[in-house]
Amino acid sequence: METPLEAFLATVRARSEATLEGLLPPADLPVAQLAFAMRYAALGGGKRLRAALVYATGEALGADRDALDAPAAAVELIHAYSLVHDDLPAMDDDDLRRGKPTCHRAFDEATAILAGDALQSLAFEVLAEARVIPALQRLAMLQELAVASGVRGMAGGQALDLAAEGKRLSITELEAVHRGKTGALIAASVRLGALAVLAPDAPQLAALGEYGQALGLCFQIRDDILDVEGDTATLGKTVGADAAHHKATFPALLGLDGAHDRARREYQRAVSALAPLGAAGERLRQLAVYSLSRQA
Amino acid sequence: METPLEAFLATVRARSEATLEGLLPPADLPVAQLAFAMRYAALGGGKRLRAALVYATGEALGADRDALDAPAAAVELIHAYSLVHDDLPAMDDDDLRRGKPTCHRAFDEATAILAGDALQSLAFEVLAEARVIPALQRLAMLQELAVASGVRGMAGGQALDLAAEGKRLSITELEAVHRGKTGALIAASVRLGALAVLAPDAPQLAALGEYGQALGLCFQIRDDILDVEGDTATLGKTVGADAAHHKATFPALLGLDGAHDRARREYQRAVSALAPLGAAGERLRQLAVYSLSRQA
Repeated sequence: METPLEAFLATVRARSEATLEGLLPPADLPVAQLAFAMRYAALGGGKRLRAALVYATGEALGADRDALDAPAAAVELIHAYSLVHDDLPAMDDDDLRRGKPTCHRAFDEATAILAGDALQSLAFEVLAEARVIPALQRLAMLQELAVASGVRGMAGGQALDLAAEGKRLSITELEAVHRGKTGALIAASVRLGALAVLAPDAPQLAALGEYGQALGLCFQIRDDILDVEGDTATLGKTVGADAAHHKATFPALLGLDGAHDRARREYQRAVSALAPLGAAGERLRQLAVYSLSRQA
Repeated sequence: METPLEAFLATVRARSEATLEGLLPPADLPVAQLAFAMRYAALGGGKRLRAALVYATGEALGADRDALDAPAAAVELIHAYSLVHDDLPAMDDDDLRRGKPTCHRAFDEATAILAGDALQSLAFEVLAEARVIPALQRLAMLQELAVASGVRGMAGGQALDLAAEGKRLSITELEAVHRGKTGALIAASVRLGALAVLAPDAPQLAALGEYGQALGLCFQIRDDILDVEGDTATLGKTVGADAAHHKATFPALLGLDGAHDRARREYQRAVSALAPLGAAGERLRQLAVYSLSRQA
């Protein structure tokens, strides 16, 4: 039996795939190899959690689903680009992603660098062109997405992560890594969903900010736990990579039980933050449950 | 004696430097190394031709200089990011840029990849936040910049260029490489300058489109010529790199004389296109002269 959340996630996956399919360059451009690599990296896989957060937040506040397609696609394009670049030999040097060879393995390193670059440009293009969203809201979304992607967000978190390799971090330092590396884009997904509504209620916005932060951390702790407890086939990426790279992780710092406890605390913080939304927050609550308990 | 163009370019360089200085992250962020690398790549060098095109076009159409700072900074940030990534070992593998070690030489490869990524995000952030520009014009600029940077523009041109290494291209194929690799962002710089004006005159816009395309090609042919005729100290980058990489270039295809002729034809096309602007096009005409005759 499919749960309501599973049905929602399946809908999001299908809808995101169709949107992205229409936005990505066709593979018959003169730059066929680059177009192929972009499609390879952005289509046919992934949980689409970030798209789900855009849709779930927007719908909780009463936004029209049509106004959510572009921001959902944009956050997934940024996420896809970041995975391509993070997997590069000079970065995490990973061979497997979403159960397939990583982009630089399937193509080559230069193509993977360019595919990531072009996916980032496309994310901003998609948002800038989304005429269904009023101009000022679109600009606010563009700004949120750019900040979340840059040195104060995702790219900064990845830099902290690389600098931390082989070092012993404090829990505060590890949280700073993940607030940037995964937290910024997850929190931005929630805010982009909210910005699809003309004038979201201020307490609701604050609540959603808190929810996004807690959810991002819960999701990342679960990621660390799965790298220890999971298996490669289910995850579609190499298990044990964190330990092999001597990465600071929540299980390494807190022990497995401690990491489970901490994930549960962040889950509870996320769910408590949803109180001002009342019943409208149900899907976001389900996404918090999913972030805490997912197996892949 | 400084010519009027030299005075203008000096003003543009100082103004761009000050704008970028204020926009780039301070080097005391927790991610100091990444912030440093971004500043290293984007400050203290470069001709600022793209910024000059934004200012010269905007001012020719009567735009306020304050409305041109953000688009000028944005095109220079995109340009800086593209140089960092193009220089990477997996791409052109260059050691010298603007007379200094390339970013991955001065820092490391991972930092250079991330610095390029974060400079791209920052370009869109800067434009999205430029409240001095009315919302619809800002969105049009964002869209132009994203398209010019992506698979149909700069990233696509770089992919064609890499695919062409060691192959014999036709002159049409070589033009397609450069229309993407350098032409797209140069043409976009002209269009961004024009978009700072509320309602630019349609014939003027068309003329500027033609001008931007011809200027971009003229500039690139001159680049190829300088790689043969120039010297490393004046250029600040390694001369003879194209031949060493067996790159298709205009001198390789047309001979040096043929390349000079072709550059002059594109220069004339650029200058002729400026006719509808009358006296207001004088600075753009001077920039075409510069593109044809520059020594560095």
